[in-house]
Amino acid sequence: MTTIKKAEVRRGAYYDSVVLMQLQRSLAALPGVLDAGVMMGTDANKDVLAQSDLLAPEVQAALADDLVIVVHAEDDVAAQAALDQVDELLTRRRRGVEQEYRPRSLESAAQMIPDAQWVLVSVPGRYAAGVARQSLRLGKNVFLYSDNVSLDDEVALKQTAAEKGLLVMGPDCGTAIVNGVGLGFANRVRHGPIGMVAASGTGLQQVSSRIHQLGSGITHALGTGGRDLSEAVGAVTAHQGLDLLSRDPETRVIVLVSKPPAPQVADELLQIARSADKPVVVDFIGYSPPSRRVDNLHFATTLDEAAGLAVQLVASTPDVESPLDLNRFAPGQRYLRGLFSGGTLAYEALLILQDYLPAVYSNAPLDKDYRLANSLVSQAHTIVDLGEDEFTVGRLHPMMDNDLRIRRLQQEAGDPEVAVILLDVVLGYGAHPDPASELAPAIARARAEAEEAGRHLEVIAIVVGTDEDPQDMDAQVQQLKEAGARVETSNEAAVRYVGRLLQYPISNIQYPTPVDLSVLHKPLAAINVGLESFTESLAAQGAPVIQVDWQPPAGGNARLMAILERMRVG
Amino acid sequence: MTTIKKAEVRRGAYYDSVVLMQLQRSLAALPGVLDAGVMMGTDANKDVLAQSDLLAPEVQAALADDLVIVVHAEDDVAAQAALDQVDELLTRRRRGVEQEYRPRSLESAAQMIPDAQWVLVSVPGRYAAGVARQSLRLGKNVFLYSDNVSLDDEVALKQTAAEKGLLVMGPDCGTAIVNGVGLGFANRVRHGPIGMVAASGTGLQQVSSRIHQLGSGITHALGTGGRDLSEAVGAVTAHQGLDLLSRDPETRVIVLVSKPPAPQVADELLQIARSADKPVVVDFIGYSPPSRRVDNLHFATTLDEAAGLAVQLVASTPDVESPLDLNRFAPGQRYLRGLFSGGTLAYEALLILQDYLPAVYSNAPLDKDYRLANSLVSQAHTIVDLGEDEFTVGRLHPMMDNDLRIRRLQQEAGDPEVAVILLDVVLGYGAHPDPASELAPAIARARAEAEEAGRHLEVIAIVVGTDEDPQDMDAQVQQLKEAGARVETSNEAAVRYVGRLLQYPISNIQYPTPVDLSVLHKPLAAINVGLESFTESLAAQGAPVIQVDWQPPAGGNARLMAILERMRVG
Repeated sequence: MTTIKKAEVRRGAYYDSVVLMQLQRSLAALPGVLDAGVMMGTDANKDVLAQSDLLAPEVQAALADDLVIVVHAEDDVAAQAALDQVDELLTRRRRGVEQEYRPRSLESAAQMIPDAQWVLVSVPGRYAAGVARQSLRLGKNVFLYSDNVSLDDEVALKQTAAEKGLLVMGPDCGTAIVNGVGLGFANRVRHGPIGMVAASGTGLQQVSSRIHQLGSGITHALGTGGRDLSEAVGAVTAHQGLDLLSRDPETRVIVLVSKPPAPQVADELLQIARSADKPVVVDFIGYSPPSRRVDNLHFATTLDEAAGLAVQLVASTPDVESPLDLNRFAPGQRYLRGLFSGGTLAYEALLILQDYLPAVYSNAPLDKDYRLANSLVSQAHTIVDLGEDEFTVGRLHPMMDNDLRIRRLQQEAGDPEVAVILLDVVLGYGAHPDPASELAPAIARARAEAEEAGRHLEVIAIVVGTDEDPQDMDAQVQQLKEAGARVETSNEAAVRYVGRLLQYPISNIQYPTPVDLSVLHKPLAAINVGLESFTESLAAQGAPVIQVDWQPPAGGNARLMAILERMRVG
Repeated sequence: MTTIKKAEVRRGAYYDSVVLMQLQRSLAALPGVLDAGVMMGTDANKDVLAQSDLLAPEVQAALADDLVIVVHAEDDVAAQAALDQVDELLTRRRRGVEQEYRPRSLESAAQMIPDAQWVLVSVPGRYAAGVARQSLRLGKNVFLYSDNVSLDDEVALKQTAAEKGLLVMGPDCGTAIVNGVGLGFANRVRHGPIGMVAASGTGLQQVSSRIHQLGSGITHALGTGGRDLSEAVGAVTAHQGLDLLSRDPETRVIVLVSKPPAPQVADELLQIARSADKPVVVDFIGYSPPSRRVDNLHFATTLDEAAGLAVQLVASTPDVESPLDLNRFAPGQRYLRGLFSGGTLAYEALLILQDYLPAVYSNAPLDKDYRLANSLVSQAHTIVDLGEDEFTVGRLHPMMDNDLRIRRLQQEAGDPEVAVILLDVVLGYGAHPDPASELAPAIARARAEAEEAGRHLEVIAIVVGTDEDPQDMDAQVQQLKEAGARVETSNEAAVRYVGRLLQYPISNIQYPTPVDLSVLHKPLAAINVGLESFTESLAAQGAPVIQVDWQPPAGGNARLMAILERMRVG
């Protein structure tokens, strides 16, 4: 059987994508038609047509702005009959939203629905920034679904928004949930105690759906668009989102989802997240976090895990961390000196301290730039492993012989810049039969001497051992405590305590104009410019919405558009 | 007050380090003595003496093999009196172990205690390899505490041991627990269901202590020495240890602790760990694992967490994973084709598949070497993101319009090399009102056509949604299942299932001579060569032990030692 392909190319014609899909389906369903393709004439779309064996010769010359209609039919008559019906099929489209009057401009829409805080924008990329700019001028927050918006436009839009205390989610923001209403693609998720900030659409959908499936729910889920966490954009929207959810009393746990951000941007975001006084689950998808937890930050490596962790954290009572009394130190006291007998404990301490301190020197450093010039003399923050080979030639290991450690403790305690001394006390067979009997008096002496000199010396001892060890662990702990040491049995717990004591203060990012919490709490109302299905969605959710009957300005002519835009600004 | 420092240097004198510590303490306690130092004359030790203000001028000329004795006293008389007592103090030392007869050689010790499976070696580094070699010749396992043993010696020792089915823990192995008996530095830990392999001494001690503190216990904890996981050594001991604990019926969970190994070594170890049919907690301290869990492997990032995770895993019932039926595929069927509408889901799938497949092509690949030449044509394993900008110019997103996906599904199903098709179905507002009504028939058709061609096509659908979504999630799942798809609601779960289906088979490492389980299960008996305190420890634990009265062979003369060694081998 020979079949025929016939095509029509319409120059510079703009139609909503839903309309094009419906047209394609209607054509394919006509008698004698085998297949149909309706799309804009981009090169990628021509490839798609070729792949489906729909590449009629007249299509080759079509441009990206042209509408291409191809029909593959049993014979010429059927093909022509199908093409002849295109106009009728296109006018038949209005079946969706019932709306008495469709404003042709944002301004009139805004007058029709003055409570609308949001404008949804899903027009083609090259028109989208203009609509978004106009929305910001009207004082509206923007949900910018459109992709193919330039980076420069994104930076400028977000800068303007930040100055006005408004949000721009996107471009290329597929989804959000604000005050219970889903924008773009959004699952219907139970209201609950978890807030989200996500630079990834299906990431947000997967996590919020899983949270619902696990029995919990969402306060708000804010999208940022995938490029928000790039260096150029600087995570403006993610910052605003984190700040909003930190201040939102209903949000008890925050989930932050993004592909791995630029390092500088990640650092800043994590600083902001740490200053939130609630747990923050971070999934920088594909980024391997150095730790599973840093204070209130909990790192997940998959979306599924992020959801599970958030639900767990809501259920668990938050750790009550004893507030740190930093005022006891004298001015100038600021350094840590860690005197370890266990090499791995020293190594793990160096690793964990990366979360808190910019640099720690050592005789066995993580980075050779921070190797001690002389293992016997500390510099700034120092962790020294006294069990290293250099110290044990012809001498007992410091787990057996406390001599070297006690001398070093004395030396460090006399340094007016030292604030904290950290040491491990390893019990068990083979180790010193009663280490605390030697270390505790040395600690007490060191603290007393510092006290006399007007300083407060904080000493933390990690006791590694069990209640069955020959040294009597309880008695060891007791002696150390009586000497004034804080005692931990977990190296990690001890080191994180030290980190929190000595970390440089978390910077407070100042927003030009903080976004008002009412954007989350007032019932959502919106103006939709673009895909009509988004208006249908909002209406189905009971949110007031006005659809703008949008057409490309100046018939899509770029030069005219630019002139119009300049006139508006002026 | 003027004080005086006096020193004595004894050429090439060898004493046990415990003896030296005791001598130093005894000297410091004598009347008129302010401080004392007793150590071998290495440069590092001279620095230590200088730091303690004990550097008498005669010490400068001492060599590493010389014993240096320094006394800091109130006056010359007190200093000289102290030095005069050195010989007497050295002979007074024998206070420790009661042992009627001390053999001078390993051979005689082995005859005295034929049940000893272990030799503990803690003589100075340059003699240690010789003692270890001799132990292996006698068919004994070696616990090699000594440090400063050359890498070549370590490689040779471990090679020999592996051939004989013996273990060499170390060099620089500080700790182990075998059948309830602690070797070297070891905490007394409750007997329990958790086995350990550790290339880190205090790492092993911290984890085993924490396991005890958390109420659980240890079967065996095997040390390997810190260099075992280097490329040169190739983790011989860690392999043997993992293999032993995998076969040990009492060990229900294994914990593997090490600083980050060489990548090649890590890969092999993880392969072995994955072939164990029990959970393995891995803490490559400071290594950021790409995932938190890969099948039976559970990654921890701190020692504390490793202990907690192991205890949790003992308590939890193991997942029953449905056995995979790989025989349904026809020969030649081997590739995955993932057809995603969600960009982040596609991205996460690529990340997770790194745990299973050597390479996955994509139009948005993790590594540009695996970018599809043509996004419309798959190659080998492929994940294609159909929501990428290239596909959405003037066309609806694939969450709304299934057309492109259905065409691609048809195309993939016709490829005889395709075994598995993975796709996401995202529900919610904004998305297609009934995606399964279009996707399910397409899946059924694809599977039927493959079946006709003699192939089995596995289709996995990830449904992202909630039971409140407008599409009726249950009905969507039902339709997809009826079409023959496996349905998951977690992207991670779906992708890991696919990974397990298609991963290349786990290699089975062959040991020249597997270590017999009796080494763990027979009551431990040992010969100790070196630090007497280790003999005391074993005796305190009720383990039969013989202390060898060791002296450097050939008086420590290296050339003579080499000749003696060669005579033995011959």
